[in-house]
Amino acid sequence: MASELPEDLKPSNEESWSSGGTADILPRERALASFDVDKMSAALYGGADGVKRRRFILMPAASMVYPEKYEWTREEMMMHSIEDFIAIHKDFVEEGYRPERDEVGWMSEMATQTGPMMPHMGLFISTVMGQGSPQQVMAWLPRALNFQIIGCYSQTELSHGSNIRGLRTTATYDAETEEFVLSTPTLGSMKWWNSDIGCVATHAAVYAQLVIHGKEYGLHVFMVQVRDENHMPLPGVEVGDVGPKLGDQAIDTGYLRLKDVRVPREHLFAKRQHVEPDGTYVRHVKSKDPKAEQLAKRASYLTMMQARSGMASIAGGKLSIACTIAIRYSAVRHQGFSDAQEGQTFKAAENPVIDYQVQRYRLFKHLAIAYCMRASGNWMTSAISELSQAANATDDGDLDAKTQDLVNAMPEIHACSAGLKGYCCKIAFDSMEDLRKCCGGHGYLANSGIGLLAADFVWQVSAEGDWVVLLLQTGRYLMKARKDAMQGKPLVGLTACLEPLRRPDFVPASRRPREPSSVQAVMDPAYLLALFEFRTLATIVKVGDRLDACINKGLAFDKAWNQCAVSIKAAAEIHIQYFMLRNFLDVIRRETDENCVEVLQQLFCLFGLQNIVEGQGWAGILSADLVSLAESGIEQLLESIRPNAVALVDAFDIPDRVLNSTLGRKDGNVYEALYDAARNSSLNKKPVFEGYERVLRPHLDLDFLKLRGGVCDELNSKL
Amino acid sequence: MASELPEDLKPSNEESWSSGGTADILPRERALASFDVDKMSAALYGGADGVKRRRFILMPAASMVYPEKYEWTREEMMMHSIEDFIAIHKDFVEEGYRPERDEVGWMSEMATQTGPMMPHMGLFISTVMGQGSPQQVMAWLPRALNFQIIGCYSQTELSHGSNIRGLRTTATYDAETEEFVLSTPTLGSMKWWNSDIGCVATHAAVYAQLVIHGKEYGLHVFMVQVRDENHMPLPGVEVGDVGPKLGDQAIDTGYLRLKDVRVPREHLFAKRQHVEPDGTYVRHVKSKDPKAEQLAKRASYLTMMQARSGMASIAGGKLSIACTIAIRYSAVRHQGFSDAQEGQTFKAAENPVIDYQVQRYRLFKHLAIAYCMRASGNWMTSAISELSQAANATDDGDLDAKTQDLVNAMPEIHACSAGLKGYCCKIAFDSMEDLRKCCGGHGYLANSGIGLLAADFVWQVSAEGDWVVLLLQTGRYLMKARKDAMQGKPLVGLTACLEPLRRPDFVPASRRPREPSSVQAVMDPAYLLALFEFRTLATIVKVGDRLDACINKGLAFDKAWNQCAVSIKAAAEIHIQYFMLRNFLDVIRRETDENCVEVLQQLFCLFGLQNIVEGQGWAGILSADLVSLAESGIEQLLESIRPNAVALVDAFDIPDRVLNSTLGRKDGNVYEALYDAARNSSLNKKPVFEGYERVLRPHLDLDFLKLRGGVCDELNSKL
Repeated sequence: MASELPEDLKPSNEESWSSGGTADILPRERALASFDVDKMSAALYGGADGVKRRRFILMPAASMVYPEKYEWTREEMMMHSIEDFIAIHKDFVEEGYRPERDEVGWMSEMATQTGPMMPHMGLFISTVMGQGSPQQVMAWLPRALNFQIIGCYSQTELSHGSNIRGLRTTATYDAETEEFVLSTPTLGSMKWWNSDIGCVATHAAVYAQLVIHGKEYGLHVFMVQVRDENHMPLPGVEVGDVGPKLGDQAIDTGYLRLKDVRVPREHLFAKRQHVEPDGTYVRHVKSKDPKAEQLAKRASYLTMMQARSGMASIAGGKLSIACTIAIRYSAVRHQGFSDAQEGQTFKAAENPVIDYQVQRYRLFKHLAIAYCMRASGNWMTSAISELSQAANATDDGDLDAKTQDLVNAMPEIHACSAGLKGYCCKIAFDSMEDLRKCCGGHGYLANSGIGLLAADFVWQVSAEGDWVVLLLQTGRYLMKARKDAMQGKPLVGLTACLEPLRRPDFVPASRRPREPSSVQAVMDPAYLLALFEFRTLATIVKVGDRLDACINKGLAFDKAWNQCAVSIKAAAEIHIQYFMLRNFLDVIRRETDENCVEVLQQLFCLFGLQNIVEGQGWAGILSADLVSLAESGIEQLLESIRPNAVALVDAFDIPDRVLNSTLGRKDGNVYEALYDAARNSSLNKKPVFEGYERVLRPHLDLDFLKLRGGVCDELNSKL
Repeated sequence: MASELPEDLKPSNEESWSSGGTADILPRERALASFDVDKMSAALYGGADGVKRRRFILMPAASMVYPEKYEWTREEMMMHSIEDFIAIHKDFVEEGYRPERDEVGWMSEMATQTGPMMPHMGLFISTVMGQGSPQQVMAWLPRALNFQIIGCYSQTELSHGSNIRGLRTTATYDAETEEFVLSTPTLGSMKWWNSDIGCVATHAAVYAQLVIHGKEYGLHVFMVQVRDENHMPLPGVEVGDVGPKLGDQAIDTGYLRLKDVRVPREHLFAKRQHVEPDGTYVRHVKSKDPKAEQLAKRASYLTMMQARSGMASIAGGKLSIACTIAIRYSAVRHQGFSDAQEGQTFKAAENPVIDYQVQRYRLFKHLAIAYCMRASGNWMTSAISELSQAANATDDGDLDAKTQDLVNAMPEIHACSAGLKGYCCKIAFDSMEDLRKCCGGHGYLANSGIGLLAADFVWQVSAEGDWVVLLLQTGRYLMKARKDAMQGKPLVGLTACLEPLRRPDFVPASRRPREPSSVQAVMDPAYLLALFEFRTLATIVKVGDRLDACINKGLAFDKAWNQCAVSIKAAAEIHIQYFMLRNFLDVIRRETDENCVEVLQQLFCLFGLQNIVEGQGWAGILSADLVSLAESGIEQLLESIRPNAVALVDAFDIPDRVLNSTLGRKDGNVYEALYDAARNSSLNKKPVFEGYERVLRPHLDLDFLKLRGGVCDELNSKL
């Protein structure tokens, strides 16, 4: 529900002192749609049941309406977010609820407040579940689920992040007391950017280098209590917030210094190993099947893969919010005379900005990206969920055939989840920011709902794997797949497009899809997919050859890799774009409602064609003529999508309280909302601003100001 | 000067509890430079005298060091910014100082605080000077310069912005009282986004539609007093701040509603017209020379052109700040083992992130853009300054030959200032944000100095002409130049590249520069410039032909224009890139120091080559082979620029107090600064966060928390 407008503002279809005159615009837009909005929502959220479930999941937050949140201090943000999060989750938890599939993503994407409890729930609890021994899970999980302890995922250090093997925190075993002694021995090794440790966490899952009797055993996780029953830091523990950020201010991401802090031997997370009282390090082996062992090892990456896939989904969700706000507002906002003539009155009619082609192109391009991102996010979340179940199954027994398939598919899913997270977070940010710019000046306002959206989101581009680092991981996998193809090894999933490399005399150009000669043919989904597949193939061949050349020149692998890294990253992006297009087409092919299919296919084509015009890696693949055809195709698509634009964002099914936007309200009463929010802004609470007496009044010419209307006397006397 | 570090932190070359161990890194980097930093600064700022002058201009702010500013409330920001601005400017003003050329840009770019006084000084005073009659200037200018009145530039309305002819505020003349009655008659016509009106301004220069005896005379400017001697709004005036924003929070951009507010007849800004007591509208004509009249008319655009060119310069300046922070920090920050091996210790040496090719590419690409933007900004500011002088000269007399040249050149300068502002602000933002991402997680911190830089800057992409609207203005000029060329009319400035269009049988491909076959040849500046010139020509021809085709199909011009707008915008961007490259080469050719020339030329090439690889509009122009050569060229350039990277940002000559950055400090003691800033952060001032007792404590298991080290007992009892 949007916030209610006060009595003195009365939205109507006509402009007046109390009305912006925009009340009829969005209803008129909605009447133009060629499809049923509920059916489109179903296509987006896994069917009608999915939509119902999604609404149910979001229901407990329905009363949390905070138009004033953009004025909150950091402390107020934190307080509200903790209170709301606990209120929302307690009921679910008491009913034994465990979130599944998309549901965590839905919650995060719809959260009106992020805050300290999200990493507690997402990262800390996942760590307990994924790394704890059964006894540890029994002791810690129920308390964590019921907010009796609050945990922090404590990995990154002040001067060490992406290279987790290089973390410097140590946990040295003291056999005498059967304790681990944890230390962050240097300034740079203090824990930093640790989610909710600044003010809130009572415990931390601390990643530290295990050292026993002087020998290094690598990185392990330890449960460390950091605050006591009065919430004061324990001896040897120093904690604090790292300071204000660009956005996402409700979280107390903090630092943690440890000076010889002792924890019991039982506080080493012990699912996969434990340390005997005398210091003997024992690795647990459950299954004798080496494949199961391999899967179990890979499953240790699952927490991270889940987090990454979740972040790709959230990226799509946040982008949907931005699309909703920008498209609704662009239909409401009118600017520029529709029929400019010399000498006309200034009251002449103006155009809705959505009808300016550059604006329309930007809006619909991002809309297509949002739909496509949702499809890929769904695919990835399902795939990882299956993997996760399989991994848990193998803890107890042997492998069936389906699980075996999953073992084989895992490297590809792992590689693509990395690149997908990196790419989706990066372009979701870019798209959100461009959509914000599409809202003109008003998009700069916090209460626009889109003003801070990108800023609050953008940490996700760097956290849990920087986007470039992750794309290079995908790149590494692609380079390996190229070698596999050349050596005739089996190719999994999308890397099947490298099949032609089996022939040593293969020339990429021989696989180029025949160039179509009409706009219609360019918009054939099968052609577009083939074209993207070919670009992936051609790029991987080109980059791989360059990498080989560097190695053949005598460079060590790491050096050669680094020298080609810009191109490898570009190749990974190209592959991920192909991956997304492919998943999007899968979704469309499964859809049964013809009206929905028609519109989805237009979005699919727009996603493809805009990349042809603006994307990288097309040199030598595309002729100038083909680009011209693509440009004409885009022109046509912008016309076709136009009547459905507002309905397409309605289908994202995002309530007004989540949008929390003066510009994106479902009713389109934008100007009333802007004015109302401004009047209530905190800077307007005092009649005269703080500091006026000191910094401004002494300079002012008070006598001149007293003249008011009489200023003309002075002017006239000077005439 | 950087803020002093406290006693318990002792930067050194070794890591320890009190040191990040990075003290020797930047000095070592600086020793690698192949050029003299002062000479490079001189190349950037108009010679050694320019550098001296720039330092002199910035001197009064030298004591304004605010490491704590990232914790300020909006009211504190406003208060500090007003106080500092007045302190800095009062001395200058008392000495009769008028800022020239780059100087306003330098001040803005170096301002540690933006705030309400900048638009007062920049926009309001410019309006008084540019639109006031001599008597009005005499009455208002000295008071404004001495901060005795504070003015707001009051143009934009809640639902009207870019289309200024469509503004709805009215000023109706009442001959009986000899007053204008000003009203914002509807909700949508209230003034909005008006710089400093929210809390600070005493006066506003209000743009309103002049109506006399029922007849519309178009948009005029009126001086309206809005607050009295006690800073309270005058009767009929409602003012307030529009609310918190994405950034730039120190300014009280506000709204203004006027309900029948009366101002004397003499308050119509009367440089070019006035209204007689009986309501007769009198336009002033000074010169009988129609060219002088034309120039005077065009000069009315000068305020806006100056503002735009200033904003392009500021964009380059802000980008320089981002480059300085990101490049210094990337040299300091180490991540990833330099020689990864199985079983090595976690304490193994790591690589500086500047040595990862993707990172290096991003850093140096933006550095090249910053240098190039500075060159274009300088060119444009000088050109407009000359125009402005000429315009003032013609107020008093006739035209000499040089002024005549300027009259001819004005349309091109006007068109390019629009596109340059649009393009530079847009890409400066993109580059700043990418540089922010280059700083990883720490770049998200406000105290990084780069965290909020882009957010504080980005309103400039939309304000004073949205970037897309401005690029389309450039596009309109280019389409007209194409027609001129086809009709054999004279071509001015860069549009000389359209000369070949005079021949009706002209085919663009005939002008394509011969494709080089070596990396060296691709990096020849003359070749690069010719290639960019050719892309401009080919694009204008292609887009122009499409526009003609639409018109020939029977579309009205506005419709045809809109249908081609995406391509026209792209053509304008392509032209502006050519324009920037050309100006950059001019600067390099004028430079006499060989060492500087060598490095500047590398940046020039990188600017060109990265556009070849990533830019638009190359289809049909570039072969795959040429793109490969460009990629190899980039690889080489990244190596060559590397040793000079830190010195190149030192040459921007930006003091630590302006950077105000934990990451970009000149001494490179990053980790000490981060930790110190965190400890002083406001959230850490209270021992327990606000709301703990209410929202968290009731849920916690206090008995469990009391166990501390004894948790193992419970764990063991469950074993």
